[in-house]
Amino acid sequence: QVTGPSGDGTDAVVILEKTPFHEEKVLELLKKHTKLELQMRNDIYSMYHLYPPPELSEIKTTVVYPATEKHLQKYMRQDVHLVRETWEDYESITLPFIQSQSFSLQWVYNILEKKAEADRIVHENPDPSDGFVLVPDLKWNQSQLDDLYLIALVHRREVKSLRDLTAEHLPLLRNIWREGQEAIAKRFGVPGSRLRIYLHYLPSYYHLHVHFTALGYDAPGSSVERAHLLADVIDNLATDSVYYQKRALTVALRADDLLLKRFQEAGRV
Amino acid sequence: QVTGPSGDGTDAVVILEKTPFHEEKVLELLKKHTKLELQMRNDIYSMYHLYPPPELSEIKTTVVYPATEKHLQKYMRQDVHLVRETWEDYESITLPFIQSQSFSLQWVYNILEKKAEADRIVHENPDPSDGFVLVPDLKWNQSQLDDLYLIALVHRREVKSLRDLTAEHLPLLRNIWREGQEAIAKRFGVPGSRLRIYLHYLPSYYHLHVHFTALGYDAPGSSVERAHLLADVIDNLATDSVYYQKRALTVALRADDLLLKRFQEAGRV
Repeated sequence: QVTGPSGDGTDAVVILEKTPFHEEKVLELLKKHTKLELQMRNDIYSMYHLYPPPELSEIKTTVVYPATEKHLQKYMRQDVHLVRETWEDYESITLPFIQSQSFSLQWVYNILEKKAEADRIVHENPDPSDGFVLVPDLKWNQSQLDDLYLIALVHRREVKSLRDLTAEHLPLLRNIWREGQEAIAKRFGVPGSRLRIYLHYLPSYYHLHVHFTALGYDAPGSSVERAHLLADVIDNLATDSVYYQKRALTVALRADDLLLKRFQEAGRV
Repeated sequence: QVTGPSGDGTDAVVILEKTPFHEEKVLELLKKHTKLELQMRNDIYSMYHLYPPPELSEIKTTVVYPATEKHLQKYMRQDVHLVRETWEDYESITLPFIQSQSFSLQWVYNILEKKAEADRIVHENPDPSDGFVLVPDLKWNQSQLDDLYLIALVHRREVKSLRDLTAEHLPLLRNIWREGQEAIAKRFGVPGSRLRIYLHYLPSYYHLHVHFTALGYDAPGSSVERAHLLADVIDNLATDSVYYQKRALTVALRADDLLLKRFQEAGRV
């Protein structure tokens, strides 16, 4: 049963996503469409409705079940507001808030310990301090490269986000930068120059991870108000070890986010 | 016949676009899917392939026939590559390239001198050194706020891009930051916290300008590989006046861009 709410008080989140076209199947699509309906014609331009057979129109379906209140909130559409978080804001508002939340990181530890998705690992550097695991993100079904999306999850567990990074983490970040690109080029044939490699701030979970997405893909969260290029992060830390412990950072918060409320209560918004 | 090339030397452009879900049909989709295939399961998360019936998966199809060479070129996909431009690269490759090109800025000067679009000006600070003009971008038809898009064009003419900015420009940038938000709140009722305010690097024209877009709108060029938040630019310059004359910056170049060729010739890619 994938739809909620259910009778016993548990809900599910069901995410439906249309996937990019497979280049090699486009000809088939044009031949095997069930129906092609003319909608409009003007000079050399015409528009049609095309109704493809099921096997050529997969919908990527992700289910979170049972889903907590927080999961429901995460996927509900909401206005977003930008807040400029100083380091002092981070220490007095954001950090206490993060620590008061109990978003489980079990799924991350499952991957790091090979208890789940072990067969999906694209690359691993097993070093406990400077190593990481590279896996396809759940948002990517791996059947086309257009929306390629992988995640590097670091082995060390005490780094919550960009705000914790110092020059001490440069070897780790440089490993991710170099080995991540090499592994993706080798496995998927996509060169590093065609990848957007970045961190989120705020991240959606507080175990350091780095996003690798196809440059041509408008991945959610790749906008400037949330994404930080790994190349910039490395350069910033190499210039100033405590860059992220003094710089103001922009955070995008949904209208119903409790953290936004904390900023409002503190008179910061 | 919608596919080309055809025997008589004429080609067609066929554009296939998957369309957004209709909210009222989602329930039907979940009930009437032909097949639901489990792909992966980890903890509370699972992924499926869902194959919908043709009537629930329309593909918008546009045909241009016969298509000229220009039509083909316009719709041909161009890969984009990222290049990490150091300050030395800027001086030896990018700057000479920009100077060798003759992009006309006449349309910008027309706006600044009220010879065009004068009735569209939303706000002006007339100071020749620290002033600017705020106008709706041509991409925005102003009939809804969802894709709000305005541009601040500075009055001074010698600042080409982010690379030219120093602490000397802080008063100008702070005027744009403050007055731009105030003017947009007053005219359109959109508060500053709902705006993405940023510069492009590389810009598409070399007269300093700042973009204001609705936060909920995935504006083209708002991705992290091209956009720089004005708030970050101001903080960077306040910390280090010559930040943009020493930092490496990422630039996104289409495969057919002559500048990419220059980087290749210089052995930098």
